[in-house]
Amino acid sequence: MTVAIIGGTGPQGRGLALRFARAGVPIAIGSRDGARAAEVAAELTGMLGEGAAPISGHSNEEATQAAEEMVILSVPYAGHNATLEALKPLLASKTLIDIVVPLSPDDPKVVSMPPEGSATEAAQALLGPDIPVVGALHNVSAHTLNSLDWDINCDVLVCGNSLDARKQVMALVSKLGVTCFNAGAANSARCVEAITPILIRINISKQVPFTHAGIKIWPPER
Amino acid sequence: MTVAIIGGTGPQGRGLALRFARAGVPIAIGSRDGARAAEVAAELTGMLGEGAAPISGHSNEEATQAAEEMVILSVPYAGHNATLEALKPLLASKTLIDIVVPLSPDDPKVVSMPPEGSATEAAQALLGPDIPVVGALHNVSAHTLNSLDWDINCDVLVCGNSLDARKQVMALVSKLGVTCFNAGAANSARCVEAITPILIRINISKQVPFTHAGIKIWPPER
Repeated sequence: MTVAIIGGTGPQGRGLALRFARAGVPIAIGSRDGARAAEVAAELTGMLGEGAAPISGHSNEEATQAAEEMVILSVPYAGHNATLEALKPLLASKTLIDIVVPLSPDDPKVVSMPPEGSATEAAQALLGPDIPVVGALHNVSAHTLNSLDWDINCDVLVCGNSLDARKQVMALVSKLGVTCFNAGAANSARCVEAITPILIRINISKQVPFTHAGIKIWPPER
Repeated sequence: MTVAIIGGTGPQGRGLALRFARAGVPIAIGSRDGARAAEVAAELTGMLGEGAAPISGHSNEEATQAAEEMVILSVPYAGHNATLEALKPLLASKTLIDIVVPLSPDDPKVVSMPPEGSATEAAQALLGPDIPVVGALHNVSAHTLNSLDWDINCDVLVCGNSLDARKQVMALVSKLGVTCFNAGAANSARCVEAITPILIRINISKQVPFTHAGIKIWPPER
């Protein structure tokens, strides 16, 4: 089953393409510039060994059509709604995985949520009730994703109004070797998306002896 | 320096009183019923060894007056604003530490945020700019706090509009042996408070082989 990554030529999209392909998931990278997506797909393919699934490059529309079930949206927030408007007719009977964080254009340590409450909720409102939207993967740093010799250092909180779609996405993301948690309905994205700028603040202000902080759900230490 | 815990006879307040007193911080428990607070203070004192700082019980007003610098608000959200209205005149030149999570009355797996965006922001709006409000300790389960043979299993995200007040609260909370992170201004509480119902969901739905989940900021594993 091919998964599309719309906006897949950016750092987050590239890292996800590498990680999923290495885990055996064929990836169709989409970009507004299909030729550019094909170049990036070839570059990423060259970084992986022979056992990896294929990575191909396309226009956003073609990539969406290439995905049987799941389409990941990985564009800057400024292009979030316009990209979805354009792809909406092609998303019928597919699940949209929204990984976009509405960072403030003035300060990446702060979110600037849309009137719907979060990017995930804005996407669900825009696509209507027949196309399930699942928010996930917001809190994984692009640097970590692209550092293939690192394990991914965090858990993934998954939210959306369809429990079936949440489970579908949790099964996909689990292939990356991370633990997923069901974080509830789409309005939980108001929290989950907003964790990212807190992590960015922690990284920038050097509050930790490392960068690229993540979050983990943690058991009690007894 | 005595720290007050308003609503300190509830599970969260009791656990914090035990943990802080054990760490050497004198605690003034406040309750609408001062006699009840005195009973609970005596009970908690009996649970601690001789090296602990004193725990005393008072009305909410007396407890607030007993605190030199910091007052922790630990009441159910339904009483959040009315309690603050009553205590406002006594909070001058003190820092309010708001640990309240606005859980939905219908479903503890969901937040029901006030129009200000979060309980911390509602408190700051109500108290005005001269009384700094810091949100903290939202995500530590009462069960963990009251299980004195456990280490606290999570990090603490601290937010508020005054950086000085955030630092003051981080220094206090660090006495519990937990790691605090500066999570930014009061509007970060929209995220930090909302982590709690996600943890409650994870606990209730048994997504983890333990209960009383917490969050940790996590370094990359290389």
